[in-house]
Amino acid sequence: MRHLLSTQDLGRDDALLVLDTAEYMATVADRSVKKLPTLRGRTVVNLFFEDSTRTRTSFELAAKRLSADVINFSVRGSSVSKGESLKDTAQTLEAMGADAVVCRHPASGAPHRLAAWVRGSVLNAGDGIHEHPTQALLDAFTIRRRLGRIEGLSVTIVGDVLHSRVARSNMWLLSTLGAAVTVVAPPTLVPVGVDQWPVEVSYDLDAVLPKSDVVMVLRVQRERMTAAFFPTEREYTRRYGLDADRLAAMPPSALVMHPGPMVRGMEIASDVADSTRSTVVEQVANGVSVRMAVLYLLLGGTREVS
Amino acid sequence: MRHLLSTQDLGRDDALLVLDTAEYMATVADRSVKKLPTLRGRTVVNLFFEDSTRTRTSFELAAKRLSADVINFSVRGSSVSKGESLKDTAQTLEAMGADAVVCRHPASGAPHRLAAWVRGSVLNAGDGIHEHPTQALLDAFTIRRRLGRIEGLSVTIVGDVLHSRVARSNMWLLSTLGAAVTVVAPPTLVPVGVDQWPVEVSYDLDAVLPKSDVVMVLRVQRERMTAAFFPTEREYTRRYGLDADRLAAMPPSALVMHPGPMVRGMEIASDVADSTRSTVVEQVANGVSVRMAVLYLLLGGTREVS
Amino acid sequence: MRHLLSTQDLGRDDALLVLDTAEYMATVADRSVKKLPTLRGRTVVNLFFEDSTRTRTSFELAAKRLSADVINFSVRGSSVSKGESLKDTAQTLEAMGADAVVCRHPASGAPHRLAAWVRGSVLNAGDGIHEHPTQALLDAFTIRRRLGRIEGLSVTIVGDVLHSRVARSNMWLLSTLGAAVTVVAPPTLVPVGVDQWPVEVSYDLDAVLPKSDVVMVLRVQRERMTAAFFPTEREYTRRYGLDADRLAAMPPSALVMHPGPMVRGMEIASDVADSTRSTVVEQVANGVSVRMAVLYLLLGGTREVS
Repeated sequence: MRHLLSTQDLGRDDALLVLDTAEYMATVADRSVKKLPTLRGRTVVNLFFEDSTRTRTSFELAAKRLSADVINFSVRGSSVSKGESLKDTAQTLEAMGADAVVCRHPASGAPHRLAAWVRGSVLNAGDGIHEHPTQALLDAFTIRRRLGRIEGLSVTIVGDVLHSRVARSNMWLLSTLGAAVTVVAPPTLVPVGVDQWPVEVSYDLDAVLPKSDVVMVLRVQRERMTAAFFPTEREYTRRYGLDADRLAAMPPSALVMHPGPMVRGMEIASDVADSTRSTVVEQVANGVSVRMAVLYLLLGGTREVS
Repeated sequence: MRHLLSTQDLGRDDALLVLDTAEYMATVADRSVKKLPTLRGRTVVNLFFEDSTRTRTSFELAAKRLSADVINFSVRGSSVSKGESLKDTAQTLEAMGADAVVCRHPASGAPHRLAAWVRGSVLNAGDGIHEHPTQALLDAFTIRRRLGRIEGLSVTIVGDVLHSRVARSNMWLLSTLGAAVTVVAPPTLVPVGVDQWPVEVSYDLDAVLPKSDVVMVLRVQRERMTAAFFPTEREYTRRYGLDADRLAAMPPSALVMHPGPMVRGMEIASDVADSTRSTVVEQVANGVSVRMAVLYLLLGGTREVS
Repeated sequence: MRHLLSTQDLGRDDALLVLDTAEYMATVADRSVKKLPTLRGRTVVNLFFEDSTRTRTSFELAAKRLSADVINFSVRGSSVSKGESLKDTAQTLEAMGADAVVCRHPASGAPHRLAAWVRGSVLNAGDGIHEHPTQALLDAFTIRRRLGRIEGLSVTIVGDVLHSRVARSNMWLLSTLGAAVTVVAPPTLVPVGVDQWPVEVSYDLDAVLPKSDVVMVLRVQRERMTAAFFPTEREYTRRYGLDADRLAAMPPSALVMHPGPMVRGMEIASDVADSTRSTVVEQVANGVSVRMAVLYLLLGGTREVS
């Protein structure tokens, strides 16, 4: 692996290597070894064309725990407004000696273009409605830690699938790792071409819940929740919100996941978010381990981890 | 101590321990030992819901001099605008492994709520009009360094007491440490309930100056200086501004303090701000030592410092 | 040297010392020694009153490679809006222990004023339309690396000279180092008083190109490209844009330089920017080496480098 651009391209062995390496990182952290010298002298640039304090912070922490230097390069009111192209920004970072560029961009495919222009590693931290691969990896890692495996599980992803890069990355990765994925969404929020995806589609959450080992709730992106897509927020919550009744309809061992930030009371009820079956907080913690693993494998690691 | 939320709760012994530890930090810095390894591998998050470059920078420097990793988590245009609650932000930082969260928030009490949700330490860096405890500690430290003691001194705080967290934190701390505090303010800028505070109230600055060992000038918060509170800026300066004549009316050894940033010519005359009796610049320097002390005591230190 | 404020003040020996030190820094980096311990425990503050991610990042990387702590102090929505003066900001940074302040400011001369108020070193990172000395030093460094010398070369600077601090700093430095500088600009974009400068002035780019060893293209600052200065963007490109035909008119060994960010298709054609004779990407890489050299010489170095 040189870049991490999507989970669609990610083979089963590489995915498992990331998860195993993340396990190692998590174990080291548990033993209070907070800082590894692995990436000392390396430079990781967070190149964010969209605000995302959570994801940026997670990558920043991961890089610092590996002793890398981190530069936050936020492209708002910056060179881009002076007319600089993405290619020139890429070459600038490259020339400055960036070993890895963590890129979030509103345009699908932007990190792929970056990767063609730089010698360093590019990590996709979310591009448009396309992919968010480290989110999927941390979700897979969380499932495996909780349920012991991914193969053979039934995973339901519910919400605005149309606009969700989290849904896309999870769908590819979980399928690769042997899970059966069902997406549940209002008909207007199911993408055209979903029949090309390795998923089942359902419009009835209550029918799917009893056979789900994992339910991933997507964040409602209010700015997109216009009348064209769905009547009202209240109606959305009534039909697709995960509340206590729906939690009770799931198998007793089934997990509730959410990539955050949550809109409590909207797509997920507060008591469900805080229940012992929710992995919301673990997902955040696991995110740091998984990003450490990816940075380690791309920048400093060998294929032999254990 | 696990958190530093207010000076109202801070006992005399704990306060003195902070001041003594800060003395140690200042001494070490004077000997050009610029970096201590104490907090290596620890993560300090600056969680700022209000802009404050000065305070944020002071905490950042303090943490870095103790070799901690610092994450600036500015919550503007970030998750909060996506509907995330303070609790979820807290749990996110906790999950990412923050050992300390330095929190500034426009709502009084927000750091207290944070403290209930995280295992790490919470440092209040200013909450609404409530408290700003490290400011009071650095002020106390500055007084003690200059005048040799706090006990028995007369300290006058002048300005917009109603809206000042600096006034509140200083009042509690200085009283605990044995000073007599007088607040001077326009009648409309004295809080209701001031009779519950351990202070004298005066409306006549000139009457109070000759018996003051320390005069703390508060910043005029222009955005609040509406007609409802006070007629005009000019009138404010005439009655409450500290100018050369008023400085001359103070005892020769009395100090002039200001938390910064100053509005020169408004609440304080430029020559007064720059006089040898002004501690404005020392307060900034002492702020780093005091914040190092607090971080050290909360995160890495023991009760036995010396 | 204590500060780096302008190249007009910079003597030939000091300039050559910077270039030689930068050569050392670049060589060390080539040998994969990514981090030098030279400035460990020192604090470099990036005090930016204007956005500039590129320049800020270059200084940040340079300081981190020398193991300094870096504080980004962006003065937007910060104390300045609360009425604090530049002097008070300077004294605040000084009191916090800044060893160097890297300052960008929209007002010409601001870094000079800063330098009068602080004991630490001040590095001008661009002040108004006045100077941008590290840009000139990295340009000189790039020329020397590519062409082996600066003395005796003919350097043409083309574009909006009136508003360009890059042009001013380069003109002084290159003259000091023995180059002959010609500026080419639309008549409305040539400064009054240019006859006091050590340059030739031309209005005809095509006449100058055949005898230029280096052509520095300035960024068109669109916001200033109003009708008062020049008719249209298209007309600008036709008369002053560097395209393939004009590149062909230059001597075969002549270089094309641009400080970035480029407006491709406007002041420079894309194929020219990407040609092997363009040094645009090298300039960025050299910028880090030159800024390391300047920080080293001002903060930690001696005059004996080799």
